[in-house]
Amino acid sequence: MLLKNNVKGEWWRAMIQERDDIVALDSAIIQNPKVWEASGHLAGFTDPLVQCLGECKRRWREDDLREQQLGAEDAEGEIRCPKCDGELSEPRQFNLMFETYVGPVHDEDDKAYLRPETAQGIFINFKNVLSFARKKPPFGIAQIGKSFRNEITPGNFIFRTLEFEQMEMEFFVPPAEAAEWHDRWMDQRMRWYTDLGIRPDQLRLRAHGADELSHYSSATSDIEYLFPMGWSELEGIANRGDFDLTQHAKFSGEKLEYVDSGSGDRFVPHVIEPAAGVDRAMLSFMVDAYDVEEVEGRERTLLRLHPRLAPVKVAVLPLVNKDGQPEKAREIYEELRALMPAEYDTGGSIGKRYRRQDEIGTPWGVTVDHQTMEDDTVTLRDRDSLDQSRIAIGELAEKLTRRLGEPWASPKLGAAAKS
Amino acid sequence: MLLKNNVKGEWWRAMIQERDDIVALDSAIIQNPKVWEASGHLAGFTDPLVQCLGECKRRWREDDLREQQLGAEDAEGEIRCPKCDGELSEPRQFNLMFETYVGPVHDEDDKAYLRPETAQGIFINFKNVLSFARKKPPFGIAQIGKSFRNEITPGNFIFRTLEFEQMEMEFFVPPAEAAEWHDRWMDQRMRWYTDLGIRPDQLRLRAHGADELSHYSSATSDIEYLFPMGWSELEGIANRGDFDLTQHAKFSGEKLEYVDSGSGDRFVPHVIEPAAGVDRAMLSFMVDAYDVEEVEGRERTLLRLHPRLAPVKVAVLPLVNKDGQPEKAREIYEELRALMPAEYDTGGSIGKRYRRQDEIGTPWGVTVDHQTMEDDTVTLRDRDSLDQSRIAIGELAEKLTRRLGEPWASPKLGAAAKS
Repeated sequence: MLLKNNVKGEWWRAMIQERDDIVALDSAIIQNPKVWEASGHLAGFTDPLVQCLGECKRRWREDDLREQQLGAEDAEGEIRCPKCDGELSEPRQFNLMFETYVGPVHDEDDKAYLRPETAQGIFINFKNVLSFARKKPPFGIAQIGKSFRNEITPGNFIFRTLEFEQMEMEFFVPPAEAAEWHDRWMDQRMRWYTDLGIRPDQLRLRAHGADELSHYSSATSDIEYLFPMGWSELEGIANRGDFDLTQHAKFSGEKLEYVDSGSGDRFVPHVIEPAAGVDRAMLSFMVDAYDVEEVEGRERTLLRLHPRLAPVKVAVLPLVNKDGQPEKAREIYEELRALMPAEYDTGGSIGKRYRRQDEIGTPWGVTVDHQTMEDDTVTLRDRDSLDQSRIAIGELAEKLTRRLGEPWASPKLGAAAKS
Repeated sequence: MLLKNNVKGEWWRAMIQERDDIVALDSAIIQNPKVWEASGHLAGFTDPLVQCLGECKRRWREDDLREQQLGAEDAEGEIRCPKCDGELSEPRQFNLMFETYVGPVHDEDDKAYLRPETAQGIFINFKNVLSFARKKPPFGIAQIGKSFRNEITPGNFIFRTLEFEQMEMEFFVPPAEAAEWHDRWMDQRMRWYTDLGIRPDQLRLRAHGADELSHYSSATSDIEYLFPMGWSELEGIANRGDFDLTQHAKFSGEKLEYVDSGSGDRFVPHVIEPAAGVDRAMLSFMVDAYDVEEVEGRERTLLRLHPRLAPVKVAVLPLVNKDGQPEKAREIYEELRALMPAEYDTGGSIGKRYRRQDEIGTPWGVTVDHQTMEDDTVTLRDRDSLDQSRIAIGELAEKLTRRLGEPWASPKLGAAAKS
């Protein structure tokens, strides 16, 4: 939870706080069904569903089975149930949006859908934002929030789930600048992952082939991470052209365009969309940071997380549970936790407590020992290098705060380069 | 959006970061229907619905109409449609949970519900958390997230909406300590609002009468704020006893109790629950901060928001758009926004730009003028006092960061006390 919050926080910092051309939004999960008519989701957001007619009666995605059994999604030939080898039904198109009803009556008129993506909530708020946010193209609207897809085959740990969280940003640009902004956003999004510690050789940008492109997109590239189950999508960066604003203008009867108050020029902005999954990003940061190494003949498991992503920044540990050390350590802990997430731990040997913090990726350990009681210095331990240095208590807060702001290079990157 | 994020951030800081006895959770919105059977929501989370049999056919909550027309929810007597004075149908109990179906089939077995509260997600994770989080009672589990209620009569701006956000914390305690912890949490939660600037005379803690108490609660108090529409609930603080863990143990077949590894003592913890609404809290902070005053013969509208809640902490403004001032201001802005949300504005007269920031509650303004170009000092303007002081650019970052951490008293409180 804390790691996931930090992933969202870093996206927010990069998208909102450190820029002045993107504003924030929190749109509704349950929206007017017209929205999904306009976006094409009602008609086309479907997967081909087949059911086992043999013993197990399980349901599968036909396209997945074709790829697994015949080598390609659109291959001709017979596929069978992977569970019990039973025959399969004819495929039917199954809409992935969860349905519900607003109000006490369950008529067709009262039907609504849980959003399958946050993007459409941004498009339908384009005109609102344009009128109050004092921005003009190029500018963006960013949103983090839950989306819902009635997936037939969720799986791969938290990679595909029915309920998930997205970080999406729609960037509205003059049509002539779309290709240039698409390039720029691909660069920036790749750099976001590597700046936060992902090893570049585990990350790739893959352009969609012409046959892969969605109906709304003239160009899309996926940022993929090399998970244990293979290369998988973390984020798609699409040039959506004017498809969305044009569709919503048509279905709502509202003009969705930008009119320059000076020149009177008007145009429907084109849209560049970097759309990332929070849960997937979190999983990639965890997988990438995971490391096992030998230290003095013993195995050490650790997460080499970027300090800004680490759930706990610093652990404060008394060396022994006597001689005033616990009280002193507690005092330091209470000072530090006002500034950053911190832990205080007295349970078990100091070695065991260090390992516990290594396993959750805590970058720094502060140890209070007998010398502390004499000269008000502590040991500062670095998770990655295992360096221990002596530092005055009075300098701790400033030093750690400063280091949280400094650039950081993944030590795993160095290790990989050496090996 | 930024204000709402800050409200959530401050709750998070108070509940998670600055304590060591509460852990974080993000549980599912769509949960197994058994959860709502166990909690009592499936049978009892209903409102009495009546429909107009006259012209307008509108739907109403019967209890609301009785209170409005007869003076009490349970008063006997005739009520009529408030819109067209039509006759009303007999009431029927209407469940407020939104229904949906998981998977492609819409059988009774596949029915699921959107959570109407985050609390139950915490109870069903009690055993998980107990087994990995190294906590023992008294300890808490906290969660911020969206909940959904199919309300018949939403309204009062964002006070009651179908989709809303909650900040709930379930605090598990030894049974003998429940009353004491209930008192403690009432104090702490009241102080949270006043520490963040709510005027104490606009806030009250109201204990539920015996007839108002939920079936699960032995004592509940509401924190209420005096909104323009009257005293309304921001947060409920309930002593839920062992109702929830006992119910979920019964329905899941899992023992939900704490066993002390030393003494072997075992007990079902009692639960104290401070449950707050994010949107309501945000609305109360906005309403409370809103002020209009006369400054040098002209009206000034401002939000006297606590600096930690303010969406933008500092605005950097060049006095004139020439002589290198915009470039200098931009430089300062870029330094500051790495540390805190900042804005850079060149549009219109300096007075107009100050007012714009006052209206969104920005506590500090930094103005770059001709003197800046000579001696690298700027004017620092205080939103509340309107004091302007000269300060070196080099000292800005540290000074503003420090002031964000310092206690702050609502200037409106002072004004109210004087008048």
